[in-house]
Amino acid sequence: MSIPPRIGFIGLGIMGRAMALNLVKAGFQVSVYNRTRQRTTEFADMGCEVASTPRALAKLSDTVITMVSDPAAMDAVLEGPEGVLGAFSGGNTLINMSTVSCEYTKALAAKCRVAGVNFLDCPVSGSKPAAESGQLVLLAGGDEAVVKKLDPVLKAMGRAVIHAGQPPAGTALKLCVNLVLAHMTTAVAEGAALAEAQGVDPALVFTTLAENPAMNCGYFALKRNNLVNKDYPPAFPLKHMLKDARFMLSEARAKGLELPVTQAVAGLMERSYNSGYGDKDLTVIHRNLTEPLNAAKE
Amino acid sequence: MSIPPRIGFIGLGIMGRAMALNLVKAGFQVSVYNRTRQRTTEFADMGCEVASTPRALAKLSDTVITMVSDPAAMDAVLEGPEGVLGAFSGGNTLINMSTVSCEYTKALAAKCRVAGVNFLDCPVSGSKPAAESGQLVLLAGGDEAVVKKLDPVLKAMGRAVIHAGQPPAGTALKLCVNLVLAHMTTAVAEGAALAEAQGVDPALVFTTLAENPAMNCGYFALKRNNLVNKDYPPAFPLKHMLKDARFMLSEARAKGLELPVTQAVAGLMERSYNSGYGDKDLTVIHRNLTEPLNAAKE
Repeated sequence: MSIPPRIGFIGLGIMGRAMALNLVKAGFQVSVYNRTRQRTTEFADMGCEVASTPRALAKLSDTVITMVSDPAAMDAVLEGPEGVLGAFSGGNTLINMSTVSCEYTKALAAKCRVAGVNFLDCPVSGSKPAAESGQLVLLAGGDEAVVKKLDPVLKAMGRAVIHAGQPPAGTALKLCVNLVLAHMTTAVAEGAALAEAQGVDPALVFTTLAENPAMNCGYFALKRNNLVNKDYPPAFPLKHMLKDARFMLSEARAKGLELPVTQAVAGLMERSYNSGYGDKDLTVIHRNLTEPLNAAKE
Repeated sequence: MSIPPRIGFIGLGIMGRAMALNLVKAGFQVSVYNRTRQRTTEFADMGCEVASTPRALAKLSDTVITMVSDPAAMDAVLEGPEGVLGAFSGGNTLINMSTVSCEYTKALAAKCRVAGVNFLDCPVSGSKPAAESGQLVLLAGGDEAVVKKLDPVLKAMGRAVIHAGQPPAGTALKLCVNLVLAHMTTAVAEGAALAEAQGVDPALVFTTLAENPAMNCGYFALKRNNLVNKDYPPAFPLKHMLKDARFMLSEARAKGLELPVTQAVAGLMERSYNSGYGDKDLTVIHRNLTEPLNAAKE
């Protein structure tokens, strides 16, 4: 039996915190680093080492997992004299579970290859409840041997690991799945708006979807109340999906692929973001659709 | 106990045939009319009366159900000296289960009101398998008393009857549900195309969706093979969804509602229709997305 890896976890936001907690619960030796130190307290209380810099974390770890918000945050923890990469040597493993662009992922993979560091790009499908219950779906890009070796670590955070190919395949697959999710959001938003415009109770759209075995989908049920009550408390903030939507379109463009519907989905999200709704749940695009109806009624 | 209505069924296409068969199986007295007489043979063999004109059918029936392809076909069976309406008198009921426009439905409802004929607009959600197994969802617009009275008839064809309001509420609700279905189609088509463009196996998009409890949806599983194998045998012909998409946009426009994503969905379907794919399954829009990729490879 191989010795379980010492894991360093960077990024204790909503998702990262839940994932790191599941690693601790699974019995792994976990050290943590977070820019806002306050979020590390509960981990210190559980006996985890709290590193004061990413470099110090890397020194404590065989495998470092990053779950941060964007490429700038990635660079901040990986690069420079206090970054992870400077402290990493051959045989160490970096797993990036943040969703960044394929381009960024490719460059990072190349950098790791040169340094002899194993690399997985491994974004996740699923949101806070799935992260908390360890039911995320992990989309891995990397060498099959590395994915296999880290399977116990990955399975502590998710129900399934899907090996998509070499990096940035995990990231590329995540974009495709989030594309479907973004479209499903605008689908029920436009469906509910059309019902309202026609004087039909929008809740009946959801009732019908739930009654039809082919269209009965958990995501629709999750978002039903937002659209029926026109209240959009953040579960998946619009600004994050908009970031992904921009990645989808730039990836498609780079490959000579036209995605006319994704273009419209992203356009609607840009409009909603520009209305100041970036921190609301992505279903808030419904407000931009229905505002003209409400204005007409007044 | 009230006497079960004598039912006249008009339109024995893929859907209508299955629905009429379920009425026969449920023990109702069913007479049929179909423009192409050949399709009535199996009903004659089961002991159903076959009427030679819609008027003759109406004379045999308390309740006439129409399930035809478009407004022109509706007019052909309802209007004129050989049409249903001329033979109908007060107390008879017309149930239109075809999907036509809200405008057409409103005009028909008004005509029935003047003639003292009960009217339900009652399109269905679900396709051939659901029609065959009596698992359709029926979206009814009409007087609550009429919907209630005809519940046994409707339940012989479907698992649920959703009363949406006065006509054209059933039709309006159907449009909203088909809007979601159309969007779900372009969602997985663009998702699969983006995977392919990025060198990721499109089948993994479906695997990921199926693993995520929030996104695991029967419709995606139903359409998976079409998109993975790039083969689009007709289950729901594109031309029918395109007809509905045009209705969605014209309804929205009439109510001052802008539906930017539906606009893009309809645009893609128009393009695919103009490529000569109207009779293929609506997933065929995937071919229009991926053709440029294939051309680039050659």
